[in-house]
Order: sequence, then structure tokens, then C-alpha cells
Amino acid sequence: MQNFDYQTPTRLIFGKGVISALPEVMKPLGQKILLTYGGGSIKKLGLYDKVKELLKEFEIYELADIQPNPKYNPSVLEGVRLCKENEIEAILAVGGGSVLDCSKAIAAGAKYDGDPWDLISYKVKAQAALPIVDILTLAATGSEYDCGGVISRTETNDKIGYMDELLFPVCSILDPVYTFSVSKKQTAAGCADAMNHVMEQYFTEDTTLLNDGFCESMLKSLMVNAKKCLENPEDYTARAEMMLCCTYGCNGILSLGNSASGWPCHGIEHALSAYYDITHGEGLAIITPRWMKHILNDRTVGRFVKYGVNVFGIDSSLGQYEIADKAIEETYRFFESIGIPMHLREVGIDESRLSEMAHHVAVNEGLENAYAPLFESDILDILKASL
Amino acid sequence: MQNFDYQTPTRLIFGKGVISALPEVMKPLGQKILLTYGGGSIKKLGLYDKVKELLKEFEIYELADIQPNPKYNPSVLEGVRLCKENEIEAILAVGGGSVLDCSKAIAAGAKYDGDPWDLISYKVKAQAALPIVDILTLAATGSEYDCGGVISRTETNDKIGYMDELLFPVCSILDPVYTFSVSKKQTAAGCADAMNHVMEQYFTEDTTLLNDGFCESMLKSLMVNAKKCLENPEDYTARAEMMLCCTYGCNGILSLGNSASGWPCHGIEHALSAYYDITHGEGLAIITPRWMKHILNDRTVGRFVKYGVNVFGIDSSLGQYEIADKAIEETYRFFESIGIPMHLREVGIDESRLSEMAHHVAVNEGLENAYAPLFESDILDILKASL
Repeated sequence: MQNFDYQTPTRLIFGKGVISALPEVMKPLGQKILLTYGGGSIKKLGLYDKVKELLKEFEIYELADIQPNPKYNPSVLEGVRLCKENEIEAILAVGGGSVLDCSKAIAAGAKYDGDPWDLISYKVKAQAALPIVDILTLAATGSEYDCGGVISRTETNDKIGYMDELLFPVCSILDPVYTFSVSKKQTAAGCADAMNHVMEQYFTEDTTLLNDGFCESMLKSLMVNAKKCLENPEDYTARAEMMLCCTYGCNGILSLGNSASGWPCHGIEHALSAYYDITHGEGLAIITPRWMKHILNDRTVGRFVKYGVNVFGIDSSLGQYEIADKAIEETYRFFESIGIPMHLREVGIDESRLSEMAHHVAVNEGLENAYAPLFESDILDILKASL
Repeated sequence: MQNFDYQTPTRLIFGKGVISALPEVMKPLGQKILLTYGGGSIKKLGLYDKVKELLKEFEIYELADIQPNPKYNPSVLEGVRLCKENEIEAILAVGGGSVLDCSKAIAAGAKYDGDPWDLISYKVKAQAALPIVDILTLAATGSEYDCGGVISRTETNDKIGYMDELLFPVCSILDPVYTFSVSKKQTAAGCADAMNHVMEQYFTEDTTLLNDGFCESMLKSLMVNAKKCLENPEDYTARAEMMLCCTYGCNGILSLGNSASGWPCHGIEHALSAYYDITHGEGLAIITPRWMKHILNDRTVGRFVKYGVNVFGIDSSLGQYEIADKAIEETYRFFESIGIPMHLREVGIDESRLSEMAHHVAVNEGLENAYAPLFESDILDILKASL
């Protein structure tokens, strides 16, 4: 077991109708609030009006139109400008992981005098950040319970995971009812995203019975509940359990004491969505089984056996490689069964830029230090197998 | 799934040698520290000298001799007096759950003008508390990651679980090496305590696949690792995993969204250790299988089936009651196998005060609202069956 230093100070207020706590949550943070959101689905949900009504005693500024794979330019830069010009005291992010990720970068940038990219690119360490509260409308990224965000800079094809312990939300308001209207496509992608967060932590060294059990339980719960959500989008219990599962995805609690794994599928997928702006969860689902096949060998087969037996109930008396192959096959089939396009071509990616992306990943993501080390040729092989 | 409001702000610094972080952790909290500890085992461990050395720039006051089942009088009262007289700014608790529980009550009492019992008995809500840091030497109670403590008041046979969100430790320093010298008796009792924490949350309504999986994983990990610790007390990996398991016991993360269970075994055991000052974990191990037998019925049998199949691997094709009976039997046998005395008589309790204790529990613990409601006659039956 490895040493660790862990803290997640975020308060989770979870359940039906909990948005009523919003004024009490915001009050100690300040009077001048930047409300951030995406393409307008919060208006369709009635959530925009609800928030404005609940916060009618506050001074509200707005940053709208935050896109999936949120962009440094214009969203982060525009948010930082609004904060500085209006002396914003706190940010209220209403939406999914992209809105929240973008808001975290804004929160840090608002308290920094230089170019916010200095912070995101780790050139400078943030010394302060605005407090963030979120109301989540999509179960997927776990951004509501971690201190990181992923920001894309289009002109350089950079997609950077930016983490700073100053960026834990003060409070995440999680009402599963707000996820009832999430489309089948986004529900499936959210499930794949959360499942991959678990797998990135599960496939490594120095794991424990405890952590393995937590990860396996979460994978099983996500698979069962995603299917229920797809069958009946208004199944409260299924939406709620899926939301709670996703919350644990990225704050480290599933792998305390495990060796660092390198998060290889995320490293590769970040290039896909930086170059092609595809849906992150779909990219992960496509990459995952190909990555699994690529890294399966005598050193790693034990982990695949445990995964296959405990997550998919594969007969433990079969041969090791037979179990591993079946486990990878089951992974692929599950993603396919929830409607995810399982080939890069289906999401608009052809072979033309695979080499360029493989090179970009090899240079920027440090995957030569991953649980199963990946060099440029490995990354290219995985991308080609994903076509 | 029930609504919930959850937050655990405590920082965990975990692993070999992490005590070196102590000065950095204490520095922002203040200069005048109350060091609290128990019967002197921290001196044998060399931990006392180490702490004094690391904190040589601080002004240290001491409260020693905190007993298991920590006492309001003298420990809490004496600690509060020391804090007030010396304008203590933070408490450093070094020891097991009892030292930490006592320190929490002191932390609240130190910031209150009246009788600290007003706070512990919930007559008055604390408005402030001193910050607490702990260095744990015993894996058991989970006090290092929750905001509660259990305090005994001998003259009234009260043993009260006192919780307040002001009482989360700021930081828990968890080095498994400090638990190498824990006796077999205390190692087993710690395991039983932590296992019962899980069971108290597992046997209830509105559970989820996720929470059930977390609980089952923790129970399996505790059983495997406690045996390893008993066989080889210096097995770092086993001590470490046991320590981490125990940490999750009482902060609620294993049962977010579950219905309240009432923690019935704790309710009953608090009377045993209040009246007879027995080891808490042993009392729990004795009560648990008798409580299970008592509440087994058509409404509860499903939970016992899940528990038996998933925790003990009992054949799921057997009849429901057969699985449940085997599961209860396995629970009893496991506790017996780690050397816990499994009858009240073996820990010095005879029939003479059972009725009095049953009445005390019925009046004070609210177990008529537990998952399986318990009235005075039920409690007496469970106590009699435990003799």
C-alpha cells in the first residue's frame, strides 16, 4: 500500500427538492454571484427560473453557452473578465461536468493577475480561487466532488486536466430529478465516463481487497442502473444511484493507497476530443476495450481475471486468458448494448490524423509511466484498433 | 433512496513515516497545544518523545490517563479546565478512539461557558470548538474520520454518542506502523467494532447496489486482514488495509441514501460498557449474532440472504432461512475464531442487572424506531441470549 494524502471537503446535498437549500448555501459566500451554464437546457428544465427566483436577493451576473469539452477561449477568458470587472464573490455552476470544469478554471483565473493559462498549464500555482457551488444536471464526470477540470485550447489541440485543491466545490447540490431529461446518448456516455474512471483506478498495482471491492461494486451498480435509466428515464432510484456512483469517480476515494495508474484511456481520449470535439464518454468507451486488449499480458492478466470474475461473474475455473478475453468482450458488449457507437469512424474520426494524435499523446500525457507503459507506437496501435 | 446532506472535511495523511507532516499540520492552528493521550502506551511506542521533538517550537500542555470508554469525570472536565486556563488553541490527540472521542468533547467544552454536559446531552448546541488533530494508534472506531465521540458518565450509567459537525478532526495522521504493537485482544475487538459499524448500516431499508457492495467489500477485507494481523502483527499491508477500513466506519459514506437503521447493537452495547466498563468491540461481537437471530423474520430475511451469499459465499441456491441461519452462524464463528469471548459471562456480566440495562436502553436509545424495532422485552431477550 502506498502512502497518501487525501481530503475532499465538498458538502453534498443530495435528493429530491434539495435545491431549496441554495440561498442558505450561497449566503455566507457573498452577494455578487456569477451564474454559469451551458446551451440553455437549464432554461427548458425550469432550473434557470428557479435559481433566479431563489437568489432574488443576490446580484447575479451570467456566463452562458459553455460548450462540452469547455474552451479556454472564449468561455474561461470571458468568465474571468466578468469576475474581475464585477468583483464577483462566488460562482454558481448549473449544468454538467463541462460547465463545472470551466467554472473551476474561471474561479482560479479570477484571483490571478496574469494569463489564466499559466495556471491551467501548471506554469504558476494558484494562490486563491473564488468559491464554487454547483447544481448538477448530468451524472458523469465526478467534477462535483473533485478539485479538477478539463479545459480545451482549440488552437493548440490541448486538452488539459487541471487540478488544484483550491477548486473543490464548497457544495454540490445533486437532485436526480434534474437528470430525468438527459438524452439516451448522454446517459450512456455518462455511464461510460464514470465506468472508465473506475477502471483507470482499478487496473494498477498495490490494490487492496477494499478498493477492489469498492471499484467492482461501482462498476456493477453503474451497469445495472444505466440500463434502468435508458429503459425508464424517470426511474428516480436508478437516476439517483447513478448520480451517486458518478460522484465518487475522480476524487481518489476508490483507490487510496493504490499505485498511480497514469489514467491511460483518458490520456488517449483527450486527444480524440481535442482534435475532433467528440463526446468524452463515447471516446472512452471506444478506447477502453482496445486498450485492454493491447495491455493484456502475463503481468496484467491477474487483474483482468479478478475484473472478469467479480464484475461480470465469469466462471473462475476457466483459464486465465480465457477469462481475460471474455472480460474484455463483455466490456465491449456492455458499451454497445447501451447504444454507444464503438468505432472511431462512427464518431467522425478517420485514419488521417491518428499518427499526429498518437504523437501528441506520447509527448504530453506521460503514459510511458502508466501501469502498463504506453509509447507512441502503442498509442497508435490502440487508435488503429479503434477505427 | 433517501435524501442526504454529507460532508467529511477531514484530511487523511496516511502511511509509513507520515508523522513528519505534524509540524506543518499544527502550525496554522496555533501555538498552544493540548496533547491528550491514554495510559502511556504512546511512551512505550516512542511516539510521545517523537511528538515532543517534532513540536519543540510549540507550547505543549498535557492531559494523560484518558481511559477506554472515556469518562466525563475526570477526563473531559479536566481537559476543558486545562484548555480554558491556558488558552489552548488546538488539541493533538494521540492514541485510539477513546482518546480522540474524549478530545472531541473537550474541544467543544473548551469553547462553551456552561457545563460541558449540556453539549454532550444535546441540551445546548455548540457554537464553536477547538481544532483537533490526531495521531492514531489503534484501528477500530473510525473517530478519526467522523464528527462524533462516545462519552461515559459513570454516576448515571450514561454512555452517550455525541456528534457535532464542528468536531471533525482537521487532520488525521494514520501510520499503520503504530498499530504493530496492538495486542491480539485489542486487534480483534477493533475488527469487531469496525465490522459492526458496517452491519449497523447494512441492515436497513432503501439500500443500493453501490452501498451494499461497499459494505460487503469492507466486511470481507476486515475479516481477511484481521486474521493476517493476528498471525503476524507486523504485516504492514494488513495493518494498513485494516486501518483504512476502520476509517470509513462511522462517517456515513457506506450508507448515503440508506434509511436510518437506528444502530441497535451500539444502543445495547453502550449499556454493557457503561454498566460494566467492558471492551466496546467485544460487547458488540457478543450482541451482534444474538441480535441477528432475534430480528430474523420474513421482512428481514432478504437482507440476511444477501449478507450470507455476498460476504460469506454461502450457496445462493439454498433456502432463504437456511442461508440466513448459516450467515448468522458464520458471523458468530468468525468472532470466535479471532479470539473474542462470545458470552457475557466471560467478560464479567451475569444476569443480575440485565433487566435494569434493558430498561435503560429502551428508555434512552430509541430502538423502537430501528430497522427492526426493539422494545424493552426484545432487548432483554437479546441480552439473555448473550449470557
